[in-house]
Amino acid sequence: MSMKEMSLRSFLVELASDSPAPGGGSVAAFDGAMGASLVSMVARLTVGKEKYKEHQAIMEELMKDCDKMRDEFLDLMDKDSNAFNDFMKAMRLPKNTEEEKKERTFAMQEALKKAALVPMETLRRCLDLAKKAEIAVERGNVNAVTDAGTALLLASSSAKAASYNVLINLKSIKDEGFANQLKSEVESLLKAIDDTVLRGLKSLEENL
Amino acid sequence: MSMKEMSLRSFLVELASDSPAPGGGSVAAFDGAMGASLVSMVARLTVGKEKYKEHQAIMEELMKDCDKMRDEFLDLMDKDSNAFNDFMKAMRLPKNTEEEKKERTFAMQEALKKAALVPMETLRRCLDLAKKAEIAVERGNVNAVTDAGTALLLASSSAKAASYNVLINLKSIKDEGFANQLKSEVESLLKAIDDTVLRGLKSLEENL
Repeated sequence: MSMKEMSLRSFLVELASDSPAPGGGSVAAFDGAMGASLVSMVARLTVGKEKYKEHQAIMEELMKDCDKMRDEFLDLMDKDSNAFNDFMKAMRLPKNTEEEKKERTFAMQEALKKAALVPMETLRRCLDLAKKAEIAVERGNVNAVTDAGTALLLASSSAKAASYNVLINLKSIKDEGFANQLKSEVESLLKAIDDTVLRGLKSLEENL
Repeated sequence: MSMKEMSLRSFLVELASDSPAPGGGSVAAFDGAMGASLVSMVARLTVGKEKYKEHQAIMEELMKDCDKMRDEFLDLMDKDSNAFNDFMKAMRLPKNTEEEKKERTFAMQEALKKAALVPMETLRRCLDLAKKAEIAVERGNVNAVTDAGTALLLASSSAKAASYNVLINLKSIKDEGFANQLKSEVESLLKAIDDTVLRGLKSLEENL
């Protein structure tokens, strides 16, 4: 069953169970999905209001983009769990002969790459989320400004959690070119997200 | 229906809708619930392992405490939405006579206090979550260290989001004694949570 069909409570019970997946990677993706939903909500509470007439077009765009983003984050929840389970499968491959050992190592390395690329995808989307949440803070319905601010916080925690999941997998990846490329992308994304989030929160906190 | 029985997807659709509740306050509580679940998971992946024998007792305690904490955070999700809806109800009270106006103002002030006290409760629990997540980072199964780190990140984003929801309500509360007391509790809790989270993340990031 896709996680998105689970109840909030069942999901948490599954999360807390002694199976390592779902874990932090899926949680990161769900944080992103909640953030995108909050931006959609703020946009919905802004469109059609005379006071925010000048932001009408951008709010309609936010609504549409963030509804789509929410579904993409939700898909990443499942993808993250599946990537982890594929790695566990590769680890359980037979290793009796030299041939088998080689095949197992190859399968494990491929699975590790996938397990790094899924949270990388989450992280990339967090930058988009942070930018959109900043717009919601700046131009959205002022009555919902703390909701837009919460979306900024989620972009930040989701990004950080996703980065941990990329980096922990990179530690076991032998392909240095692959690892270095991802590592430098992680760094520049975290920096860009941090800048956006801090700017947005500053503007919010001045009004609290 | 309690939110905890909703599917992840339905919850997000409801969150993104143009009704202001559920909003950031419920999201803050759910972040706390995910954090508590991750600490439970790390503890479960630690108990019974020879390598972590010396931490057995504390991990069993973490497991029990965090399962309970998860349910408390889940209840706070509903409480937050209900508090907001109660405030909307108070706002819709009649205000035709002086008597009615007085009653409406009183009801609104009481509802605002409740709407500030619920996220305050979330915030208080976040300090407990941060402390437990730090233990999970330091002494839990090293294979799940990024999950424990994610719990720290969630304690931080949940706390910050909850604080916004306290502060925004305090702005309309006339009872200065009440407002000042909560404001100073918010400040000291955020400081204590920040210290704990930064310490835990530092220890985690050194190993990434």
